[in-house]
Amino acid sequence: MKFKDEIKLYKSMIDENLKKVYESGPINIKEPIYHILKGGKRIRPILSLITADACGLNPEEAVDASISIELLHNFTLIHDDIMDNDDLRHGNETIHKKWNDSIAILSGDAMLAIALLKLNEIPKYSSSIIKKFNEGLIEVCEGQALDLYFQDKEIITENDYLKMIHKKTGFMIGLSAEIGAILANADKNTQNEMKKYGFLIGRAFQIQDDLLEIISNKSKMGKTLESDFLLNKKTYLSIKSRLIDNEIINTFIDIAKNDFEKGFMHYKEFLQRNNIIEETEETISEILNKADKILIDLEINRKNLFDYTKFILNRKH
Amino acid sequence: MKFKDEIKLYKSMIDENLKKVYESGPINIKEPIYHILKGGKRIRPILSLITADACGLNPEEAVDASISIELLHNFTLIHDDIMDNDDLRHGNETIHKKWNDSIAILSGDAMLAIALLKLNEIPKYSSSIIKKFNEGLIEVCEGQALDLYFQDKEIITENDYLKMIHKKTGFMIGLSAEIGAILANADKNTQNEMKKYGFLIGRAFQIQDDLLEIISNKSKMGKTLESDFLLNKKTYLSIKSRLIDNEIINTFIDIAKNDFEKGFMHYKEFLQRNNIIEETEETISEILNKADKILIDLEINRKNLFDYTKFILNRKH
Repeated sequence: MKFKDEIKLYKSMIDENLKKVYESGPINIKEPIYHILKGGKRIRPILSLITADACGLNPEEAVDASISIELLHNFTLIHDDIMDNDDLRHGNETIHKKWNDSIAILSGDAMLAIALLKLNEIPKYSSSIIKKFNEGLIEVCEGQALDLYFQDKEIITENDYLKMIHKKTGFMIGLSAEIGAILANADKNTQNEMKKYGFLIGRAFQIQDDLLEIISNKSKMGKTLESDFLLNKKTYLSIKSRLIDNEIINTFIDIAKNDFEKGFMHYKEFLQRNNIIEETEETISEILNKADKILIDLEINRKNLFDYTKFILNRKH
Repeated sequence: MKFKDEIKLYKSMIDENLKKVYESGPINIKEPIYHILKGGKRIRPILSLITADACGLNPEEAVDASISIELLHNFTLIHDDIMDNDDLRHGNETIHKKWNDSIAILSGDAMLAIALLKLNEIPKYSSSIIKKFNEGLIEVCEGQALDLYFQDKEIITENDYLKMIHKKTGFMIGLSAEIGAILANADKNTQNEMKKYGFLIGRAFQIQDDLLEIISNKSKMGKTLESDFLLNKKTYLSIKSRLIDNEIINTFIDIAKNDFEKGFMHYKEFLQRNNIIEETEETISEILNKADKILIDLEINRKNLFDYTKFILNRKH
């Protein structure tokens, strides 16, 4: 099967299962949960299934675990959207916008509860997976805490930024790959290397997200771009920019507060002028090359994983 | 040892352990977590320790599990306080008030993550306890969802109310007792009966909370009473009142919106006049009698549990 078709198949397996995650329960959490689950690229659970397959397991046997990861991811989206006051997610209204903050807080909590219950249904290896999942949960919370903390600072180092995105994004993408390998009963070294592959994918994915916010547009990204810029959220491009001229970035944000398009346009031009966009593209490629190098040394069926790396590299939203 | 001293000892064991739950991590979640953990009666973890002891286990061996329950409880308090817009908790400012909503959402999430990590540290029986804990988490979320849902309704039945408080409060108090019995390796019947004992304690505890909001005062309760009344939150007393005269309760709330003391005073007088306070006190006693009856049939060292029932009955805040 072609990689594109394989991805489609995996996505539909995941989506089918997500449709059944919460069939009973109060309507004021059930509706928001299904509302947000309608959208999303499913890059985390797809990685679990591809890894499971590469390590010799029928991907169907990894679906439950992969769904827990997708649910945990959606839990963080719901809560992050409240914190960032974002209006759009996956091209739809965010939960706190369509309902209210209380419903959003609560459906996020319930989403996490459902993720944990799903994990309990996995017969094999569940206790080690549950432990890793819980470790991932605290990493994600700490990543978001750093993200908020850094918003109050003008300049942070690249290392601070990389630590923050590792916690916020990288760790769970690493876990997505690792869980596929664990479920497939791969040896410890393979489990570990697949985790590292996922960490790198996560890093590239986040930096690319930062880049797409600049070169893509609102409707393609399916989320609002204003808030990140106005909130002074740290991105790979913003920390590079501030190293070059901190004052001018503050000026652009000030302009954007009154006229978003204008301030944001100045910022984009600055990024172009200083080669930050090219530099970021190169960084992403380098990280993904590193990720692929990990695969070469493993005794697994790595073809789809190479394709997955390319799929991440080439995404446009 | 006298029961009072035993409780003190347990509380200090719990408090000592809570001081160590989150020693590293970003300051903007660490500080709020320790802020809310300063207060609280610890009735849930104390029940776990008393049950463990009654079933023949050294209570020290149940501390980790009991702490997870206390952390989960505090996670719900942090998020509920945002939803109810409460200013006070355990006599201190609530997290969303002292910091902001984002920090409160996030430290609640992190508190839950820490609770789950603590559970993973329990060597014995951890997978069954983790499963029960996760089931408790979704019950609590659903209970809170019903609580919000019922705020938009004028009249709900006593059964609706009992279902809501079972999910929101009873289930986790039941689990507190059950976990003590599980860790002590008690037989299945004892585990189950202790759970039922806890369910009843939880029911009595919540109805008593509703009552104390009327007959206690703000400083004793350590939380604000205004919000529950103005938000039309369903309490045991409010559903009884509305069955007698729905219109007048709406009038009292309308008055309270302009002059809280006045509207609330009218409501209190109404409760007195219609014997609802006495009726509620009787209900609490009946439930606790039922709870004690469960203990009689069990082959455990039940003395402290009887005292615990009395301790719940006689609490003033």
